[in-house]
Amino acid sequence: MIANKHRALIKSLYTRHGRKKHDLCVCEGLRCCRELVSLRPELVSLAVCSEDFDAASIGNVSFEKIPKGEFESLSATVIPQGCLIVAKKPEMTDKGNSVPADPFIVVLDQVSDPGNLGTIIRTVRAVGLKELWITEGTADPFNEKVIRSALASQFALNIREFPDLAALSRELHKFGYDRIYRTEPEGKASCFEEKNLFAKSAIVFGSEAHGVREMKDSIPVLIPMPGRIESINVAQAATVILFEAVRRGVFK
Amino acid sequence: MIANKHRALIKSLYTRHGRKKHDLCVCEGLRCCRELVSLRPELVSLAVCSEDFDAASIGNVSFEKIPKGEFESLSATVIPQGCLIVAKKPEMTDKGNSVPADPFIVVLDQVSDPGNLGTIIRTVRAVGLKELWITEGTADPFNEKVIRSALASQFALNIREFPDLAALSRELHKFGYDRIYRTEPEGKASCFEEKNLFAKSAIVFGSEAHGVREMKDSIPVLIPMPGRIESINVAQAATVILFEAVRRGVFK
Repeated sequence: MIANKHRALIKSLYTRHGRKKHDLCVCEGLRCCRELVSLRPELVSLAVCSEDFDAASIGNVSFEKIPKGEFESLSATVIPQGCLIVAKKPEMTDKGNSVPADPFIVVLDQVSDPGNLGTIIRTVRAVGLKELWITEGTADPFNEKVIRSALASQFALNIREFPDLAALSRELHKFGYDRIYRTEPEGKASCFEEKNLFAKSAIVFGSEAHGVREMKDSIPVLIPMPGRIESINVAQAATVILFEAVRRGVFK
Repeated sequence: MIANKHRALIKSLYTRHGRKKHDLCVCEGLRCCRELVSLRPELVSLAVCSEDFDAASIGNVSFEKIPKGEFESLSATVIPQGCLIVAKKPEMTDKGNSVPADPFIVVLDQVSDPGNLGTIIRTVRAVGLKELWITEGTADPFNEKVIRSALASQFALNIREFPDLAALSRELHKFGYDRIYRTEPEGKASCFEEKNLFAKSAIVFGSEAHGVREMKDSIPVLIPMPGRIESINVAQAATVILFEAVRRGVFK
């Protein structure tokens, strides 16, 4: 049986407050646990699995085995896969000493839906970027839902969080990312035509409900939609832009 | 107060069995209801809203007003927006008489996640396609979650469902869509280079867990991922391909 203090800890990590207090997060499911262990084994703090789970499938981690029903009561999912890992949260407030190496920076402004954030994290990693910059008001990247939806790709990225767009913008300029684009339905330049879109730039995606907030000197860029609907999902918008960079050979 | 038979009907429509039995579905929330009423007003069967909801904001539909608490108990969402419409389900088994006008056909093979299906429906519409072909095992496009995630764009499309890929394939060939692509991590031709990708073709996307099933004479096509991860989300894969068509001017 799992110790009561461990049970209480895991439950508290399903809240933003609990994750902040303990500086820990929960990574659940086979693919996510495997990815975490392969990317950042040093972050593993506590590993728990159901008694019928094949713990060897995860890699070099010692799991505490508990009864199936007990595991289910710890899980945050409807159909638990039988394993979860409590991990240290990677640092998100950068002290300004690490120079980003990416050709351009993806910025999320208050993207609050966990599923969208997770999908964007997974896609940012898929194209080969290392950085993701976000503003306060964005979902917590180490929320257990976001981890599941990103298949734990947040542990492969350097995620930097800023209180607002002004602070984020200062940091972009400090590192020479001087051209700032924001995706907008009324942008004039199309993302397929704008020549400098990925040249030491930043590209800002706004919240599902309100779009990108006011941002000084930012350049609107349009994703053309021949079907003339109001908008596409923010994760789809990010995907269009990210794979336009792949197509242009930005990562070669 | 809402009649008991209406309450029972709405609840039953949150199950696949209930939707099939009654041939109805539930469209909930401001944007979804507005879209449904603008696209297919003739499908509206019953409209219910909370007493504090501004029914005039939806358009020309008469709503039955009920107490707020009662509305919440009918809703399938965590934070109800105060309105829902019961609508007739559009026909999905085509009798073979309507000729598709799209330059290429998007096919989903057993894409079972409602959020992914809804996002794909919204994106298919955004690029200007009219058709979406699916196999049995795909989530129900008129499931209330799929409707919310697609913002009711399913009512703008002609969705055709087939028992399997063989039956679907026969229908593609009947209409001259003879070149069938399937997205695969091991495809050799890249979606950014394959010249005939959108020339009277079909492009098949597989389930999140298993990919596309065996399909006779289909051509593998690759979405390049410089980040070398196993896969991206199926809705992101579809978005990459759909906007590659936009970029090439297929819809001009």
